[in-house]
Amino acid sequence: MNYLKIFAPATVANVSCGFDSLGFAVDAIGDEMTFTKTAEKGVKITNITGANLTYDVDKNAASAVVKKILNETNADFGIELTIHKGFSPGSGLGSSAASAAGAAFGANQLLGNIYSELELTKFAMFGEEVACGTPIADNVAAAVYGGFVLIRSYQPLEIVKLPVPSELRVVAIHPQIEVKTKDARDVLPTKIALKDAVTQWANVGGLIAGLYANNYELIGNSLVDIIVEPVRKTLIPHFDDVKNAALKAGALGAGISGSGPTIFALCKGEEVAEEVYKNIKESYKNTGIAFEMFTSKVNNEGTKIIESK
Amino acid sequence: MNYLKIFAPATVANVSCGFDSLGFAVDAIGDEMTFTKTAEKGVKITNITGANLTYDVDKNAASAVVKKILNETNADFGIELTIHKGFSPGSGLGSSAASAAGAAFGANQLLGNIYSELELTKFAMFGEEVACGTPIADNVAAAVYGGFVLIRSYQPLEIVKLPVPSELRVVAIHPQIEVKTKDARDVLPTKIALKDAVTQWANVGGLIAGLYANNYELIGNSLVDIIVEPVRKTLIPHFDDVKNAALKAGALGAGISGSGPTIFALCKGEEVAEEVYKNIKESYKNTGIAFEMFTSKVNNEGTKIIESK
Repeated sequence: MNYLKIFAPATVANVSCGFDSLGFAVDAIGDEMTFTKTAEKGVKITNITGANLTYDVDKNAASAVVKKILNETNADFGIELTIHKGFSPGSGLGSSAASAAGAAFGANQLLGNIYSELELTKFAMFGEEVACGTPIADNVAAAVYGGFVLIRSYQPLEIVKLPVPSELRVVAIHPQIEVKTKDARDVLPTKIALKDAVTQWANVGGLIAGLYANNYELIGNSLVDIIVEPVRKTLIPHFDDVKNAALKAGALGAGISGSGPTIFALCKGEEVAEEVYKNIKESYKNTGIAFEMFTSKVNNEGTKIIESK
Repeated sequence: MNYLKIFAPATVANVSCGFDSLGFAVDAIGDEMTFTKTAEKGVKITNITGANLTYDVDKNAASAVVKKILNETNADFGIELTIHKGFSPGSGLGSSAASAAGAAFGANQLLGNIYSELELTKFAMFGEEVACGTPIADNVAAAVYGGFVLIRSYQPLEIVKLPVPSELRVVAIHPQIEVKTKDARDVLPTKIALKDAVTQWANVGGLIAGLYANNYELIGNSLVDIIVEPVRKTLIPHFDDVKNAALKAGALGAGISGSGPTIFALCKGEEVAEEVYKNIKESYKNTGIAFEMFTSKVNNEGTKIIESK
């Protein structure tokens, strides 16, 4: 293989109760990237569309990951990269994670598929570090593995791929405002009440049990975040209105995607998802804030090849 | 049915990471209770063996539950109760929970099995309140449902029965010392670091995923409690030695059963369980503290009928 084009999905991290531990990938939104083998060693970005990102190979999350992989494998070839961002950086949908996961996946394909998903996640975490300063795993793991993932541990890194009930749909709204990652981190409490932690981990347990047991009611009951959402939602205008609109239309639950501002809702079935989409749209249209929306299946494959030669 | 004899299992609450949320039932240890219909209304305890417990029907967890059920159903008969405690109160193995769950189960049988497991759990929680002052659900739910249970929520009460991998075995040691529930509660922090809570709920998630996926390695990796065990183990002499002995012999993990002093270990398969049993025994024999031990399957049926007419 000398060339491939890949799709790297957008991802929803935290998933209400699972702050810094859970994530899932979506089908409808993501980046497209191409990888072309070159005789000249090293990595080069030849084109970036869809967002204004750096071409500096050491500062761009995608090229930094490709460079690291080529170095570590002592590859006798180079890679030319194009990146088409299918969604905005700063949306809370794992933009840098998609770039980093896509880069790890694509380089690995040109190397003959020598790395496991866990190893690809580690490379992609380096891209997150380049882009955001911290090697957070929840978005990149979801983008690499697809489906729902649990980051069971960082030291050593252990990722658990969880099953995806087939009727699960996601609806998301991205208000076009900026939530600075620093602000989203600064509002977090450093300490929490033990009793709240117990409530939260019972919900994490319930969500995971619901995913395994195809129990949508249990999934819905468990999509509750009493720790992070109450403080972070203050950074997201009209969060409660959107959440209420989603729940009223039959969503299983709704919450903040990553550190926001995107708000996601999980639903059982297409029909409910359509109603939830409409109701959220209706709730936001008079806010004066521009927004984008999508409905999607949960992506169960992770990053994937869409063309190769 | 005018008479039945039941077995109500001992239970392990918390299960390392799942403080106040997880529990499981054991097969080898439990109470036996008999229930005899009487023409005279009301409840009476005619015999208690195996432990020194009150015959006062309003203060004994078992009779208090039977009385409540008879009252709520406006039953036209009474029940005579005998209780044989198969294990000691104060062991951390859910002694009052076994009595309370057994009582709810037995009375329900004589009423023609009108209540669900969830309803029986609620009645049994009343017994816990009578015995301990708080209607904690983890032990009673495990004793009613059997297997592993998750208390997803208290308000409203939601219990999730989790699957039990078939090779799972438990080894437990009960040092004959008293850990006062008040002391066990008093050492708990009221606040914990958010980052520790994240570690803990990732482990709760991992344990539940491991139970569903029959993934013993994941179960073992997840049996870690960084919040409660570090403070409670100070009340249990030689806890670290027992835990190390268990892990050295191949246990998946080990921790405090409920609020102690019993220490449990989970193992994959009989052979490992035998080695773990021997190694723990060896580690404790020179401590000068008397102890009891058992090895058991996880009880997947909960409270059950062993004789009826």
